[in-house]
Amino acid sequence: MNQLPSSPNGAELGKVYLVGGGPGAEDLITVRGYKLLLKADAVVADGLGQLGLIEDLPETTEVFDVSGFESGGRAAQQEVSNLLIDLARQGKQVVRLKVGDPNIFGGGGEEAFACESAGVPFEVVPGVTSAVAAPAAAGIPLTHLGISNGFTVVTGDDEIATVGGDTDHTLVILMGLDRLRETAFTLAAGLRGADCPVAIIESGFAENQKIVVGTLANIWQIAQSAGIKSPAVIVVGDVVRLSPHYLAELEAQFFKPERS
Amino acid sequence: MNQLPSSPNGAELGKVYLVGGGPGAEDLITVRGYKLLLKADAVVADGLGQLGLIEDLPETTEVFDVSGFESGGRAAQQEVSNLLIDLARQGKQVVRLKVGDPNIFGGGGEEAFACESAGVPFEVVPGVTSAVAAPAAAGIPLTHLGISNGFTVVTGDDEIATVGGDTDHTLVILMGLDRLRETAFTLAAGLRGADCPVAIIESGFAENQKIVVGTLANIWQIAQSAGIKSPAVIVVGDVVRLSPHYLAELEAQFFKPERS
Repeated sequence: MNQLPSSPNGAELGKVYLVGGGPGAEDLITVRGYKLLLKADAVVADGLGQLGLIEDLPETTEVFDVSGFESGGRAAQQEVSNLLIDLARQGKQVVRLKVGDPNIFGGGGEEAFACESAGVPFEVVPGVTSAVAAPAAAGIPLTHLGISNGFTVVTGDDEIATVGGDTDHTLVILMGLDRLRETAFTLAAGLRGADCPVAIIESGFAENQKIVVGTLANIWQIAQSAGIKSPAVIVVGDVVRLSPHYLAELEAQFFKPERS
Repeated sequence: MNQLPSSPNGAELGKVYLVGGGPGAEDLITVRGYKLLLKADAVVADGLGQLGLIEDLPETTEVFDVSGFESGGRAAQQEVSNLLIDLARQGKQVVRLKVGDPNIFGGGGEEAFACESAGVPFEVVPGVTSAVAAPAAAGIPLTHLGISNGFTVVTGDDEIATVGGDTDHTLVILMGLDRLRETAFTLAAGLRGADCPVAIIESGFAENQKIVVGTLANIWQIAQSAGIKSPAVIVVGDVVRLSPHYLAELEAQFFKPERS
């Protein structure tokens, strides 16, 4: 039998599972992720309220809420990584539960790298990202025969000006509400043009789901009027026309009396 | 109590669930998708062999393999849609099981539209796409603080020349092996340059998983030598450097005697 790797204090090393918890509905975690969660010794999660999954855990599971660390950038990330490593060195099976997929703006790579450097075994369990699931909740596929042949996912802070493609290349923007006005302006000035359809999905899989649709020209105003708040996913491109919300909006416009 | 919608022959209408089956490992389907699968009256799946999930079904479940329809484009898609509609009109709960996510090159939008047009209730259940999961299986996150702030997903046949960004914008190519040589050439001539790292992951979550790494300059030759076959996911960009496979390859190159 092989010798198991051991921690500095002599205990058998545990393992860290970086698990994607899915886009918000608790049954959209993977079967693998859910099973690991139920048998974990310790669970380290962002924003416990966000995922009802924590309620399913046995009472003996240690649960750590690290949502307060979120805004702290690299330093906070390092604290979370240290916690994971400490727990694994105590011999524990640790689930690091993340919203969406660990590897899409989730810091999964950073935590994997920290475990690797510390000699702690780890495994990434992918999850359903809200970049795909929130549009689906609004009836918007990211690709569609003859309408879109690909998609790009970015955050609102970066890269908007360098995104390629036209209205037939779907653009998904995460965490982009704060800069929506500038983003829409930049995109409207490019190949997509001011008439390009846009949808915003707030809280894609929650009770308080809210969806607004418009164009690059008017979406900022529409989002303001509707009081759209984070977390929200912005979808830009011709696929938005497939949403029943878009059709309903077109009908409403058609029957609305003209302004005098 | 509301009147349920009924089918032309008077039976109560069933419902179609367009379910993402995940990237290949059977426990990477979502909990919601798995539960729907187990209680479905009929399951319509591509390539039964690909997902061991079918084995878990009760004997009473009707199972339809429509994998032969795949290569047929729009006509075949219409046949699958007709089958789903027929089954729902017989009052059945139907799961349309798809590899990956229904809305990413999965024809989910087309089938949803067909159901909508036929007045058949449907629901999309998102899944883990191999565009995210296959790179994860090779230790490659699609985004990573300071290395990549976004990603684009396309197929090999299209859009390669219009993809924006540099080596810090990750590019994922699905179904791209056949045109790999041309794709790599086009990308190398752009901002990314010939030295941009590339990984190819064959059968991301299967026993016969195979991973090769290289650069835009040499990846085609490397993939040829290794006999890489479909299904394979191609990842282009600086995030590839994070893969242990990339590090191992660098070491192997370093210690290899120079060719005379």
